Amino acid sequence: MKAVLLCSGLARRMNGKVKPLIRVGGREILYRSMKLLERHGIQEFTVVVNETNREEIESFLRKNGFNFDVVINDAPERGNGYSLFLAKDRVSGRFILAMGDHIFGDGFVEKAVKGVGVVCDRNPRFIDPDEATKVRVEEGRVAEIGKKLEHYDCFDTGFFVLDSSVFEIAERLAKEREVVELSDVIRDAKPPVTFVDGELWMDVDTPEDVRKAEKALFRESGKGMGDGFISRHVNRKVSTRISRILADRISPNHATVISFAAGIISSLLIFVSIPLAGVMYQISSILDGIDGEIARVTMRSSRIGGVVDSVLDRIVDFLFLSTLAVATLSAGVEFFIAFLAVFGSFMVSYISERYRGEFSEGFYRRFSVLVPGKRDERIFITMIFSLLYPAVDTLHLFIFIAVLTNLRVAEMLLRLVKSCSYISYQYTT
Amino acid sequence: MKAVLLCSGLARRMNGKVKPLIRVGGREILYRSMKLLERHGIQEFTVVVNETNREEIESFLRKNGFNFDVVINDAPERGNGYSLFLAKDRVSGRFILAMGDHIFGDGFVEKAVKGVGVVCDRNPRFIDPDEATKVRVEEGRVAEIGKKLEHYDCFDTGFFVLDSSVFEIAERLAKEREVVELSDVIRDAKPPVTFVDGELWMDVDTPEDVRKAEKALFRESGKGMGDGFISRHVNRKVSTRISRILADRISPNHATVISFAAGIISSLLIFVSIPLAGVMYQISSILDGIDGEIARVTMRSSRIGGVVDSVLDRIVDFLFLSTLAVATLSAGVEFFIAFLAVFGSFMVSYISERYRGEFSEGFYRRFSVLVPGKRDERIFITMIFSLLYPAVDTLHLFIFIAVLTNLRVAEMLLRLVKSCSYISYQYTT
Repeated sequence: MKAVLLCSGLARRMNGKVKPLIRVGGREILYRSMKLLERHGIQEFTVVVNETNREEIESFLRKNGFNFDVVINDAPERGNGYSLFLAKDRVSGRFILAMGDHIFGDGFVEKAVKGVGVVCDRNPRFIDPDEATKVRVEEGRVAEIGKKLEHYDCFDTGFFVLDSSVFEIAERLAKEREVVELSDVIRDAKPPVTFVDGELWMDVDTPEDVRKAEKALFRESGKGMGDGFISRHVNRKVSTRISRILADRISPNHATVISFAAGIISSLLIFVSIPLAGVMYQISSILDGIDGEIARVTMRSSRIGGVVDSVLDRIVDFLFLSTLAVATLSAGVEFFIAFLAVFGSFMVSYISERYRGEFSEGFYRRFSVLVPGKRDERIFITMIFSLLYPAVDTLHLFIFIAVLTNLRVAEMLLRLVKSCSYISYQYTT
Repeated sequence: MKAVLLCSGLARRMNGKVKPLIRVGGREILYRSMKLLERHGIQEFTVVVNETNREEIESFLRKNGFNFDVVINDAPERGNGYSLFLAKDRVSGRFILAMGDHIFGDGFVEKAVKGVGVVCDRNPRFIDPDEATKVRVEEGRVAEIGKKLEHYDCFDTGFFVLDSSVFEIAERLAKEREVVELSDVIRDAKPPVTFVDGELWMDVDTPEDVRKAEKALFRESGKGMGDGFISRHVNRKVSTRISRILADRISPNHATVISFAAGIISSLLIFVSIPLAGVMYQISSILDGIDGEIARVTMRSSRIGGVVDSVLDRIVDFLFLSTLAVATLSAGVEFFIAFLAVFGSFMVSYISERYRGEFSEGFYRRFSVLVPGKRDERIFITMIFSLLYPAVDTLHLFIFIAVLTNLRVAEMLLRLVKSCSYISYQYTT
C-alpha cells in the first residue's frame, strides 16, 4: 500500500515554518507520520504540495531518504478534495490518505492502517470538538460529514484507507465546481467507517497545539513498556514531565548515563546515610524511564540501547543490594538471605527475557503474574525500608525482597512448567 | 515445494518391520525425514509404497497427521526409477525426492533443501563407499552415476531437488525397459549437482546400521548449542554416550529433573565435603546436557523445556555459589566478592538472553567474545578449586570467578555499546 499525504493547504505558517515541517517532540510532523506509516508497512509516499512550500518539503523528504514522489497543486485555494484528485495517477487500488499537518500517535497508526474507509474517533481526547469535522454513521458507512453537523457519531481523524474509486468522484466534483473539500468527496463516496477511539491524533494550528501534542506524546511514551504498579502510578508521571523538559537538551544516551550514575551514587550513599541512599535509588528508578521516553518521542529508539539499559539496571540493582548487605549484615545466614534477594531480583528479569528470547513474545503477554516484584516495585519497597532505618533492620528488607521476588519466580516457573507439560504432550503422540 | 518419498523398495524387512518404519533414536526413519522436511518448509508429501507395506505406512502417516497422499507401485521389482515415474501426476514444478529408508540429519536437510539437482557428498562419514552410489561430475552436472564407477567425485545421498521434467525421462525409460533404476533416470537427465559435504546421511540396512545411525544422531545432538570449551571437549563426549543409553528409558523431562537434583545435591554436599561437592557439581553439569540431547534426537524438544532448563541452571549455580560462600567465608568484603561472582555468573547468561529477546538472533552469532566464563567453564573451574580445598581457600575461587565473569560481562557490554553507537548513528540523521 502507498500513502498520499496532503501538504498543500494554504494555512498560514507557524513560527515562520511550513506547517507539516514544524517540529513536535524533536521531529517534523511529516517525519513522524511517514516514519510511523513505514513502521506499519507503508513504504511509498505521494506528497501533494503547493508552489510555495514545494521546495522546503522536497528537500526535507530527500534529506530523510523517504521513498516519495511529489504532486504540485498550483491552485491550493480549490481545496484538499482537489489536491486528492491531482494524486489520481500516482496510486492504484487501496491506499492511505492522511493530512500532512496532523500528529498521529503510534497506537493510532497501528490500528488505523488496518482499517477501511474513514478512520473516526468516538472519543477524541486531544481536539476541540467545535473546530473538528464530524461524521454521522449509518449502517457502518458515512451518512453525513461536516464541521457543523448537529447530530453526529464521531470525528474524522484526517486518516483514510480508500481505494482508487474515490478519484472518479473527486474528478467529477472538480469539473462541477471551483472549491472541492475532502468532505465533499467523502460525502459523495459514502465509504465505510472504521472506529479508532481514544488514541492520539490532532491537528496542529497554534504553538499551544504543539505544546499539547508534545505533552500527549510524552505521556504516551511511557505506555506499553511492561511497567509495574509503581512505575505506572508514580515514576512515569514524574519521568515523562522531566523528559519533556529535557528532550531538546539531551540525547537518550545521555539520559542513560545520568540514570546509571544516579544508581551508582545511590550505592555509594549507603556508606553516608541509608535513608538518603534509598531515596536516591528511587530517584534513579524514576530517571531510568527518561532515556526510553526521549528516544521514543524523538523517534530515535534503538534496540541495542534497550539491551544496554537493561544490563545497566541489573548492575545498579546488584550494587545497591550487595553494598547494603556488606555494609549492614554480619552473620553467614543473613548473607544467604541477601544472596536470595539478589538472586530473586535477577530471576524476575531473567525468566521473562529468556522466554522472550525463545518465543519472540513478551512473557507478560502470555502469562499474567499475581505476585509483585518488578524492578520499580522492588526499588520503591527498598526506599520505604531505607527510610525506616535504623528503626527497622535492613535484614527485614532482604527477607521481604527475597520472599517476594522468589515467590514471583516460583509463580513464573510454575506457569511455564504448566504450559510446558501441555506442549510436550503435543509432541509426544 | 512438495516432497516425494520412495518407500516401495523390495528390501527384506528388518526385525520384522517395514524399513522406513524402523525406529532409530526413538522415531521411525520416515518420521524423522518428514519432520525435518517440515521443519525446513516442506509441508506436502507424496509417498510411493508397494502392496505389501502400504497398509502399515498409510496408518503410520495418518496417525502422525502428515499432509500426504499415497501412490501404490504394484510392480516394485521394476526399480525405483519406475516408482518415481508413478508419482508423475502428483507433483508439478520443483520438488524434493528422497529415499524413504535413509536417515538424514537436521544439518543435512537444512542445506539439501536449498540445493538443486542431485545432492552429493564429497566427504561421506557414515556409509560404506563400496556399497554406495557414486557420481562423476562435469561442469557442475552429473556426467556418470552408478555403484561401480572407477572415477568419481562424490556420493549420491539419496536426496534430490528436481523438477517435473524428469518425469518425461522416467516415462520414456519405463516404456523402453522392464527395470528402471533411479540412477538410470538421473544418468539421462544429467541434472546439476549440489554438494553437501560431511553431514549426516546414511541408508539403514542392518541392525548394525541402526546403532551407527543412533550414535551419529546423538553425537550431532550436542552441536550448535552454544557450548563452551569444556562442554565441547569434555561434557558432551560423556553426556551424548549416556543419552544414547537412556534415550529409550527416560523422557527429556525426567533427565531435567535428574540433573537438577544432582545440582541441588552438590550444594548440600558442601556441608559434607567441598571436593566431593565440586565433583558432584561438575557431574550435574555433564548430566545437564542429557535432557536436550534426548529431546533433540527423539524429536521431542520443546522450547518451553529449554526455558525451564535455563532457569533451573541459574538456580543450581546460585545455590552452589551462595552456599559455598556462606559455608566458608566470613568477612563482609569476602561476601562482596562472592556477590560479584554470583552477579557475573548471571550476567553472562542474562546479556545473551536479553540480546536474543530483542533481536531474535543469538548474541554469539553476532559477537565473538574472547574472555571465557560460560557455565560449563565456570563449573569446571569451580571443581578444580574445590579439589584443591582446603589447601587453596575458597576466596580464591570467588575472586577468580568474579574477575573472569565480570571481565566477560564488560567485554560483552563493550561490544554492545560499540555496535549501539553505530546503530544510533543510523537513526539520528
